[in-house]
Amino acid sequence: MALIVQKFGGSSVADAESIKRVARRIAHTKAEGNDVVVIVSAMGDTTDELLDLAGDITATPPQREMDILLTAGERISMALLSMAIHELDVDAQAFTGQQAGVITDTAYGNARIIDVSPSRIQRTLSDGAVAIVAGFQGVTQFTNDVTTLGRGGSDTTAVALAAALDAAVCEIYTDVDGLFTADPRIVPSAHRIDRISTEETLELAAHGAKILHLRAVEYARRYQVPIHVRSSFSDNDGTLVIDNDEEGPMEHPLISGVAHDSSQAKITVVGVPDVPGSAAQLFEAVAAAGVNIDMIVQNVSVHHSGVTDISFTLPHEQGAAARTALEAMAAKHGYAEVKYDDGVGKVSLVGAGMRSHPGVSARLFSALYEAGINIEMISTSEIRISVVTRSEDLPEAVRAIHTAFELDAAEVEAVVYGGTGR
Amino acid sequence: MALIVQKFGGSSVADAESIKRVARRIAHTKAEGNDVVVIVSAMGDTTDELLDLAGDITATPPQREMDILLTAGERISMALLSMAIHELDVDAQAFTGQQAGVITDTAYGNARIIDVSPSRIQRTLSDGAVAIVAGFQGVTQFTNDVTTLGRGGSDTTAVALAAALDAAVCEIYTDVDGLFTADPRIVPSAHRIDRISTEETLELAAHGAKILHLRAVEYARRYQVPIHVRSSFSDNDGTLVIDNDEEGPMEHPLISGVAHDSSQAKITVVGVPDVPGSAAQLFEAVAAAGVNIDMIVQNVSVHHSGVTDISFTLPHEQGAAARTALEAMAAKHGYAEVKYDDGVGKVSLVGAGMRSHPGVSARLFSALYEAGINIEMISTSEIRISVVTRSEDLPEAVRAIHTAFELDAAEVEAVVYGGTGR
Repeated sequence: MALIVQKFGGSSVADAESIKRVARRIAHTKAEGNDVVVIVSAMGDTTDELLDLAGDITATPPQREMDILLTAGERISMALLSMAIHELDVDAQAFTGQQAGVITDTAYGNARIIDVSPSRIQRTLSDGAVAIVAGFQGVTQFTNDVTTLGRGGSDTTAVALAAALDAAVCEIYTDVDGLFTADPRIVPSAHRIDRISTEETLELAAHGAKILHLRAVEYARRYQVPIHVRSSFSDNDGTLVIDNDEEGPMEHPLISGVAHDSSQAKITVVGVPDVPGSAAQLFEAVAAAGVNIDMIVQNVSVHHSGVTDISFTLPHEQGAAARTALEAMAAKHGYAEVKYDDGVGKVSLVGAGMRSHPGVSARLFSALYEAGINIEMISTSEIRISVVTRSEDLPEAVRAIHTAFELDAAEVEAVVYGGTGR
Repeated sequence: MALIVQKFGGSSVADAESIKRVARRIAHTKAEGNDVVVIVSAMGDTTDELLDLAGDITATPPQREMDILLTAGERISMALLSMAIHELDVDAQAFTGQQAGVITDTAYGNARIIDVSPSRIQRTLSDGAVAIVAGFQGVTQFTNDVTTLGRGGSDTTAVALAAALDAAVCEIYTDVDGLFTADPRIVPSAHRIDRISTEETLELAAHGAKILHLRAVEYARRYQVPIHVRSSFSDNDGTLVIDNDEEGPMEHPLISGVAHDSSQAKITVVGVPDVPGSAAQLFEAVAAAGVNIDMIVQNVSVHHSGVTDISFTLPHEQGAAARTALEAMAAKHGYAEVKYDDGVGKVSLVGAGMRSHPGVSARLFSALYEAGINIEMISTSEIRISVVTRSEDLPEAVRAIHTAFELDAAEVEAVVYGGTGR
């Protein structure tokens, strides 16, 4: 008998039929002798509908009230799911984030969990009942104000409760079979990853893979919570996100997968004075405008001209804010030009094995060269290489890299670090 | 400067435009220098929609989960109303029943308020902000489980908070101008009552008047909270529900109004053994079936037959349960017949003045006689006379009584106890 945390997203509980299907799965897990804690998101489009309602009232909603509004969605789904489980003659109780002991800071709209005190959940499990917990929400420590955890917050709730309850596994149910070596809509030969480290999952999530939320993976990494990403539409095994140092590096594949991100744009500032501190000034202004910068390239100053060009990537939707800030800087510091380019895409190759394997970037660049794809920017971490291309080249770039690293093979385990020297 | 509690029902906050209109009224009250606490119900049909959702899942929802589900409605409306007030540059904060300190017993679906600890509301008022509180909901004392207060529960929340905060007045906003001497849809000459005692309001509410919820008036009576029932669509004065012993009985009109109730049915049990305890047996069986009995008439046993007939009224929707219980009793105790009649209606005349005025019932009976209306049952309290008629006679009965007691006059104050001896 194990304690299992199961998280179901909005598409898994979109209507009464879906809720009943999820209830049957929970009852089945319970019947197998497990203790079950379920985290549930708001039904289908509920959150968007609530946002629309707020939009009809005001363009600038106070954040505290916005969080109260949005958490109504989980209140509905958690109550209905608990009813559906009762209907199967299995005892269940639904709990708000507050009742489940999810304590957060006061950053409304994007609160961080600072403590989890799940005594009510533990009591419910001791009583033999299933505990249903509203995802995405918590409560502030001293004032008991309702908070939300931001995009993908229900994943974070699930992992945090799994950590606090010392669960055997945190199952994240979704509409696909797990994490894939690339997006199957772009690479038909992409296949499910059986097992992957949290570190690689973080890189994939940070660079475009949409399945798991970054903060949930960070939490799982810190508290060593095994995550099982799987489909709510089948009983197939999914992807196990787990760190296991005992097995050593020989078990790790060289490459885990290819992520892509078409939501980025590129800004190039031409003619920045090439003096100490001028790049810092520029990026301070951009940061003050609330812009999240991803990759940065500063050109080498040629011909001793005294000026240089700086390029960086940022999310599309922050483009206007960044340009406004930079135009002001241009007027003040005499930049020659601020160029905005939303025709870019980013492809990232992730693999823990590349840490000690020097040939990876060469193989990646040559694959793109052979596919006739131009590289505009490059950034790397210990276990990742990202390149920016024209957005129309992005799908072909993903496919070329996927093939070059032999990820098209049926078994990803075939491509392991060491041995052949690839 | 006074502390004013304002309660807005679902029809007053049915959509974004209505919410904005309510926000303007609140901001106006605040701008006049008052502290304002607002109780709000769920938007329009939200509660019915949530009930439908639950109905798609199960026919027998657990009550605890049902209360969690239903309270999502006020969570939405309170957040949106607070946003709309912010939009008018007035500071506001929304609070759940729990945050507002509304503590109840554990009778899910129909919980009773056992304590109100509104320290957060008081702090919000001290900070100069408007406090918005979710109506209809509370939280259990020790387990912090969400409860609902039953039909009309938002009125009760409003009165309970007004009592706890020692508010100058509890304004209940509705879609009519206040309490009327009769239902204006039936009696076109009915007019608004300026002022009425809680005792009379209780009788009117208990016997068919729909404007105020019974428990809210009981609460107001116990804690001496003045209620002002008024329209959310105009600035007109409404009806002041208040007890003021200092003014003495001379100020009270003889009759306050005429209520009617067409939701009752009548059961007659024929041939009940006329021995001690048999009526008690019968009503114990009916009570055990969860039926709320209103009026009872036991016929005089004639011709020393040893049997008698017992008639009583009950809500339509409890008819099936009562009949099932009584058929079983009939088989066991040899009753001759159980007759069910849903073609009845009840009209009630209410007035504190009738306590010391003997001519009222005679005038009522003669008015019905002159209108050719047959009386099937009669019950009275100190300040009320109710009669059961055929349901098709009910509208005419209401009009005849309204006219006989000179309530058609433009000024209800003209009809006062004493003086003319009427």
